[in-house]
Amino acid sequence: MTASDSGRGAILRAARKAFARQPYAAVTLRDIAAEAGVSASLIVKHFGSKEGLFDTVADFTGAADALLAVPNAGLGRHLVLTLVRYRREQGSDLLVRVVFAAGSGDERALLRERFREQVTDRVATRLAGPDAGLRAELVIAHLLGLGAVMAVDREGLAATVDPERIADHYAPGLQALIDG
Amino acid sequence: MTASDSGRGAILRAARKAFARQPYAAVTLRDIAAEAGVSASLIVKHFGSKEGLFDTVADFTGAADALLAVPNAGLGRHLVLTLVRYRREQGSDLLVRVVFAAGSGDERALLRERFREQVTDRVATRLAGPDAGLRAELVIAHLLGLGAVMAVDREGLAATVDPERIADHYAPGLQALIDG
Repeated sequence: MTASDSGRGAILRAARKAFARQPYAAVTLRDIAAEAGVSASLIVKHFGSKEGLFDTVADFTGAADALLAVPNAGLGRHLVLTLVRYRREQGSDLLVRVVFAAGSGDERALLRERFREQVTDRVATRLAGPDAGLRAELVIAHLLGLGAVMAVDREGLAATVDPERIADHYAPGLQALIDG
Repeated sequence: MTASDSGRGAILRAARKAFARQPYAAVTLRDIAAEAGVSASLIVKHFGSKEGLFDTVADFTGAADALLAVPNAGLGRHLVLTLVRYRREQGSDLLVRVVFAAGSGDERALLRERFREQVTDRVATRLAGPDAGLRAELVIAHLLGLGAVMAVDREGLAATVDPERIADHYAPGLQALIDG
């Protein structure tokens, strides 16, 4: 990895964090630059603008790959453990940044559309039985809600106890939705 | 409803939106007044100041009262129906604005603290059996997640189908967490 690649990676990590933690309007290139340990002008050089950076970050393919990596039979538990462990290890959430894109604005609409195509619709294609589309949205609701609780109260129980214990309580309802 | 009551409601709706979308420091009474279709001086008359307005908006007591209005036996279904119907009728969410307060800043910390005291802790006191605190957080996760899905995709199924059908799928897992 060249120094320039490494700067790019650090910017993307900082940007994901920033967009995952705050509404779009509150995010500044200056803050992202400070977090990434680079200059704001390097961000502009790589991504053009806040919009350009947001556009790059607004991709959920990797998150969906990780979340959907197992067969449906064990998917409920896998979803919970993957989400919780990712947050513990990375300090950010796989999905919850889409919530900050609720509201108006073109860049928000883009993020929501991507999320639907790359995550919700992909879950729906995995589900058999009646109401697959609605059940897919409710599977997503489970994950966004858990992500939200961990983001809102970082010293709370969901943010700190053994992920297996969270899965014991939270996975059965999720699995029931998957099974239909 | 008098014209003045109606102005108060419009101010509160505009304020919830504004505080949910921007950092506290970026919110102005002028913008809220414009959004609410009233004068800034009417806001001052009703709420005293931006701080007073925020303080009013950062209160979840009414939401918790509505959500927890039935005995535990039917609470899962009641929670889902109350949340969904409120959004359909009011165009806003009972709880999800706390998610926008993730991150730093004193006024965000205040909102999160209020949420814990007024909602999460109150749910926890209703739960018997092991892991009541964690289960309360996961009950909240269900509600924040459903609110998030409805807010993010306003033309999606969760935002548009019969609330009873949502409850059919979403309430059983929630009720299992309540029952412990």
